Amino acid sequence: MIKKVLIANRGEIAVRIIRACRDMDIETVAVYSEADKEALHVQLADEAYCIGPKASKDSYLNFTNIISVATLTGCDAIHPGYGFLAENADFAELCRECNVTFIGPSPEAISKMGTKDVARETMKAAGVPIVPGSQGVIKDIEDAIQIANKIEYPVIIKATAGGGGKGIRVARNEEELIKGINITQQEAATAFGNPGVYLEKYIEDFRHVEIQVMADQYGNVIHLGERDCSIQRRLQKLLEESPSPALNSEIREQMGQAAVKAAQAVDYTGAGTVEFIYDYNNAKFYFMEMNTRIQVEHPVTEMVTGTDLIKQQILVASGEKLTLAQEDVTFNGWAIECRINAENPEKNFMPSPGKINMYLPPGGIGIRIDSAAYPEYSIPPYYDSMIAKVISYGATREEAIARMKRALSEFVVEGIHTTIPFHLRLLEHETFVKGDFNTKFLEKYDVMK
Amino acid sequence: MIKKVLIANRGEIAVRIIRACRDMDIETVAVYSEADKEALHVQLADEAYCIGPKASKDSYLNFTNIISVATLTGCDAIHPGYGFLAENADFAELCRECNVTFIGPSPEAISKMGTKDVARETMKAAGVPIVPGSQGVIKDIEDAIQIANKIEYPVIIKATAGGGGKGIRVARNEEELIKGINITQQEAATAFGNPGVYLEKYIEDFRHVEIQVMADQYGNVIHLGERDCSIQRRLQKLLEESPSPALNSEIREQMGQAAVKAAQAVDYTGAGTVEFIYDYNNAKFYFMEMNTRIQVEHPVTEMVTGTDLIKQQILVASGEKLTLAQEDVTFNGWAIECRINAENPEKNFMPSPGKINMYLPPGGIGIRIDSAAYPEYSIPPYYDSMIAKVISYGATREEAIARMKRALSEFVVEGIHTTIPFHLRLLEHETFVKGDFNTKFLEKYDVMK
Repeated sequence: MIKKVLIANRGEIAVRIIRACRDMDIETVAVYSEADKEALHVQLADEAYCIGPKASKDSYLNFTNIISVATLTGCDAIHPGYGFLAENADFAELCRECNVTFIGPSPEAISKMGTKDVARETMKAAGVPIVPGSQGVIKDIEDAIQIANKIEYPVIIKATAGGGGKGIRVARNEEELIKGINITQQEAATAFGNPGVYLEKYIEDFRHVEIQVMADQYGNVIHLGERDCSIQRRLQKLLEESPSPALNSEIREQMGQAAVKAAQAVDYTGAGTVEFIYDYNNAKFYFMEMNTRIQVEHPVTEMVTGTDLIKQQILVASGEKLTLAQEDVTFNGWAIECRINAENPEKNFMPSPGKINMYLPPGGIGIRIDSAAYPEYSIPPYYDSMIAKVISYGATREEAIARMKRALSEFVVEGIHTTIPFHLRLLEHETFVKGDFNTKFLEKYDVMK
Repeated sequence: MIKKVLIANRGEIAVRIIRACRDMDIETVAVYSEADKEALHVQLADEAYCIGPKASKDSYLNFTNIISVATLTGCDAIHPGYGFLAENADFAELCRECNVTFIGPSPEAISKMGTKDVARETMKAAGVPIVPGSQGVIKDIEDAIQIANKIEYPVIIKATAGGGGKGIRVARNEEELIKGINITQQEAATAFGNPGVYLEKYIEDFRHVEIQVMADQYGNVIHLGERDCSIQRRLQKLLEESPSPALNSEIREQMGQAAVKAAQAVDYTGAGTVEFIYDYNNAKFYFMEMNTRIQVEHPVTEMVTGTDLIKQQILVASGEKLTLAQEDVTFNGWAIECRINAENPEKNFMPSPGKINMYLPPGGIGIRIDSAAYPEYSIPPYYDSMIAKVISYGATREEAIARMKRALSEFVVEGIHTTIPFHLRLLEHETFVKGDFNTKFLEKYDVMK
């Protein structure tokens, strides 16, 4: 069993991992940047070491310093959390070379899922539904027209070397397609040095539904149900829930099985999330991507399944077999997570770092708080703006919503702006309450108005 | 449905009730003494009114003022919480006369269970096991010797008009019995003006195990399993858990059925707790008393059953039928509650009221906090010393203990002494960990040494 873990992260996820370690009687080593001396994870860990200046690249992304602290303090494992080094195959490889267990999948699995085209083809081969489109890059305009006619408009033109919303263009007819391909190819050649583009069916209205999977080193893979993360602003998730109000049991079952196949296809180990585009108009789902790490929204799955996912990560990384078989996974009730950010929702979500004066998290029945904030804590401006995750749980969605509203209305955070007012409005919104929304919800409705 | 509730209480239970009301979209009215102007329940309620000076008898026990506030503010119900007026039949009667729903059982049920002898005889008649003993007061010494021989020594001599540990004497043989009866009769005549004494079998080593019941106005009564409250100091519970480590499924089932019978025997409505002496050496249990109100330790039952007991209280008081049948009640995992008091466990639990400087409750997976404390809050010395209930939940007792230890070690309360160090020692104690203890645990082991 793993005995001592270095947590290569900060904020609430570092605190979350320290808590799981403490529950398992595992020693913890925190690392921190010069900007994070006063951070809660530093105070809660058994040991803490500064690994560099405030810039992430010099601290939380600094391979050498992190590995050095791990080996010097006798850590036998590193938990990367999410973000930073969590999906860095080179770092996972370095851990392997240094005989430190990387609590996550193999570098190979990280690589395969991290490369868009490879992931798409791997999934296709494994029988996981992917969005209909061209196989690899298109040959020429004629080829593109033929494919577009087959998959039907609208289609999306994607540069194979693109990513993060760059090199992407929607075409709604043949004219737009021809024009779009030309422009995208030119742009891609200039921007990425690779003019290759491929086509996918453009699904306008979809829900973001993802499946949590867990795999051990012996080929056992289970899924722990879905999370609906359709409430997004500029691709940032703001509220997640489990189960999804949009799935029926048939789709749920199919999606779970597809996620297990996806994990098996890359010999996955540990906790991972297979994200799907859920085309609810046609009751079809398609592989979007796999996140090869724990996710911010993992607590909603913990609430409805009663499983401690961080503990499970540590157990399977220690070489333990999964103790749960698929048929042992049960789902109870409904959980919602609101990500509370230090941002001003009245001013276009402008970041609002600074000192928290009064701080009192809510409590009571059905409320869980995952946070690294405390009274008098100064939020540094250098990292992400999330200050707390409020997770509510209830027997029904209605109860979970009611408890979340109550908790947010109690939450005291003074001295900075937060997104609490935004979430309170969202939770009152008729369309949200009905559960009848897609990823465009926040484009369509300005809940702050 | 009840629309507006006056909460005739303070502290964490007032906050707990406000939270349930908010979850149900019910308006709340807080009342407070002059010492509680700054209390959290005053801040959280929709309205708040001062009902008198700091002394409880002039404020939280002040019938007239409380009823006046209720009627003047248009409240259709009063929730008494625990303590104060919660088991006061006269107050329940006054509410009835004023057409305000008392969220609790009828005055008649409160009276029957509040009178020791009546409760004992009522339970006997209903077939609920009571401790073997005399029927009513003993006639003479010969009668007493005969009964003692039948129920076997040791026996306990109790003044029928006694109570609260007064007028009680243990006899381990005939000589002690004769002497004891004489002394107790004399004392009782002097102290209570009634020399009557009765005999009960004295059970030396027992666990305090209690059953949560819930009853509607239509004769439906269910139980929600047991709580083990054997960890007590001078009859004050300090830690409670559900389920009990001492019960097997057969005893659990029998005890649950006995509790339902007890409630039915007094036409009980609402939430109540039937407390039992569990004589584990003989696998027998006996009725101790019934608390006709919500109890401090109710959250452990909520955690393992997924039922919101305060919500249920309000629903049945509104005239709703119980939505749960006995067979729908399921039990999952293990829950522990630690009562954190403002007391110094190093100095014989001396009360330690005063100003809390830094305050940060713990969080994370499996942790629920019910508290009315906040940073800079001054704990008044006039009421009970409990400042927070920390409730941990896990799949197993081991996991619940680990999470509780983690939570307590994180809990920041500066400026006053608390019982957190006591609880941390208790949770480490081998005998506690084994689950093998009785109500004498804290007499036998000084965990602070």
